[in-house]
Amino acid sequence: MSKIILTGDRPTGRLHIGHYVGSLRRRVQLQNTGDFDEIYIMIADAQALTDNFDNPEKVRSNIGEVALDYMAAGLDPEKSTIFIQSMIPELTELTFYYMNLVTVSRLQRNPTVKAEITMRNFEASIPAGFLCYPISQTADITAFKATTVPVGEDQLPMLEQAKEIVHKFNSIYEPVLVEPEILLPENEACMRLPGTDGKAKMSKSLGNCIYLADSPADIKAKIMSMFTDPLHIQVSDPGHIEGNTVFTYLDAFCTDEHFERYLPDYKNLDELKEHYKRGGLGDMKIKKFLNNVMQEELEPIRLRREELAKNMDYVYDVLKKGTEKARQCAAQTMSEVKKAMKIDYFG
Amino acid sequence: MSKIILTGDRPTGRLHIGHYVGSLRRRVQLQNTGDFDEIYIMIADAQALTDNFDNPEKVRSNIGEVALDYMAAGLDPEKSTIFIQSMIPELTELTFYYMNLVTVSRLQRNPTVKAEITMRNFEASIPAGFLCYPISQTADITAFKATTVPVGEDQLPMLEQAKEIVHKFNSIYEPVLVEPEILLPENEACMRLPGTDGKAKMSKSLGNCIYLADSPADIKAKIMSMFTDPLHIQVSDPGHIEGNTVFTYLDAFCTDEHFERYLPDYKNLDELKEHYKRGGLGDMKIKKFLNNVMQEELEPIRLRREELAKNMDYVYDVLKKGTEKARQCAAQTMSEVKKAMKIDYFG
Repeated sequence: MSKIILTGDRPTGRLHIGHYVGSLRRRVQLQNTGDFDEIYIMIADAQALTDNFDNPEKVRSNIGEVALDYMAAGLDPEKSTIFIQSMIPELTELTFYYMNLVTVSRLQRNPTVKAEITMRNFEASIPAGFLCYPISQTADITAFKATTVPVGEDQLPMLEQAKEIVHKFNSIYEPVLVEPEILLPENEACMRLPGTDGKAKMSKSLGNCIYLADSPADIKAKIMSMFTDPLHIQVSDPGHIEGNTVFTYLDAFCTDEHFERYLPDYKNLDELKEHYKRGGLGDMKIKKFLNNVMQEELEPIRLRREELAKNMDYVYDVLKKGTEKARQCAAQTMSEVKKAMKIDYFG
Repeated sequence: MSKIILTGDRPTGRLHIGHYVGSLRRRVQLQNTGDFDEIYIMIADAQALTDNFDNPEKVRSNIGEVALDYMAAGLDPEKSTIFIQSMIPELTELTFYYMNLVTVSRLQRNPTVKAEITMRNFEASIPAGFLCYPISQTADITAFKATTVPVGEDQLPMLEQAKEIVHKFNSIYEPVLVEPEILLPENEACMRLPGTDGKAKMSKSLGNCIYLADSPADIKAKIMSMFTDPLHIQVSDPGHIEGNTVFTYLDAFCTDEHFERYLPDYKNLDELKEHYKRGGLGDMKIKKFLNNVMQEELEPIRLRREELAKNMDYVYDVLKKGTEKARQCAAQTMSEVKKAMKIDYFG
């Protein structure tokens, strides 16, 4: 059986390093293994509209930004098919028919939906489209017969919902749909990078994100004001690693080579952590090191992004070609789905 | 502004005289007035699947039956566009985006949905597709910019929901959608014809329907065993008109000309009712009269139906051509909707 990846992002803002270490860097690695027959990367504008329906301009304008972030980070249009969700009507058609296979109470029990309803202050007034977005996600995954969905642990309930729909569809109609598997991040620190202020989630409104497009000066300023250990007042005080954002970021980004280049007094991150815990290591020193690491990691991405941004016609052309290819695949699945459901009257 | 009709039926069985007097006969009259620029008649197979998802063969096989009933009853493919809902993917696309504009609690308050949930024993396990079918109906109506929806009074909450979505869409985005108006039946008896057993609703499972395709012998047998007035034991007893199915049917079907032809002792239905109420008029006599009336009304329909059924290729060709025309219209609306929502990236 083919190995096929489907993943993507809502275009509600530029991508930040949380997206990068949480998923984007991994996608690029997976793309470059050559182990996958197809890699579909979806810019989920239709899904973004479920909670931004009154601000379509925000979604529209961020499609180009996200595409730039993708290609700058190393997604290669020759190897990965980048496409726009709303340009593939088959995805709404699949959603429509899958909605018959899921009860309202099942959707209301979905932990991810529950958490997001609280976060968005929806409570009694959840839009139907938002409640049903796990069904829409299943449509996205199954339209491409994806076997592999590389996402964070918080998306596990979504994958469970997708599997349920696949089982139900295949048993009621014909075994047309492919059951997807989640592919979790290998590095625990990558599962959810906190904001620079130490808050659990990076968010534009909190101003605690480092963006892939940020200038070197912005990156440095954000790192220098980063949340560390509030009990670590004097350099000589013993410090805490747990919940210390600088160390969480180092866990996600630094390698032994970075120590060779920027902090040769230490062999690796473990030695640095030991010193910090003992006391005698100042926050400024670890922040400067993190800044060096991040600048090294982000510079090539930023430079590629600036280059690509000069030619947005090319970027949209990539999206257009990707969307055409993705649509062919989705249309093929839709035709199999309709045949299985006996919706083929003029055939 | 153009005057455009949209209406239709779920293909879950052959149409019966409840459908005929409740809507079908009216549609044919409206069609023949020439007052409407377009008349779209939808065979709502996708909607039928919301509560028949595990039996798509039932839906599939009834599409031809409903099309036969339509054309036999006088819908003329030259004047009315008969089409199949599921063959127009734009309708699912519109549904998908309208779902952002309606809250779950609004759907749960819909009286028609509430009543149908009880009738279908869904209770805690309503499929999401069923809960959302008022949204799907709005998609159907607005895709064709229908101004006029000729349906029964029980569909008023559906029209209210459609108007709400139209207002919300037009105010958030651009004034693309047209607000539909309900067109109620003129004759009160036509609003909901009871079953031959006097039960409020005709239903295949209760065996209390007279079908448009029924043979003369079947029609007669059903009329002769019809529910009348349980207190009217002797011919001489005073009879009751209220709740007496034979009189309800006569209200819906008979004209003064029918009295001239089949029961010239009475000038009209009022005189017949007066006699029945006074006493001295037997049920057999009024049933025989109803039988004559119904046979006269249904014979030409049945004969046309038998003729058409000999050439199902022609019937499906009508559906195919109608669907092509309807799809063009829906695609035009969808393109305006996407433009209003700023979902037009490659334009």
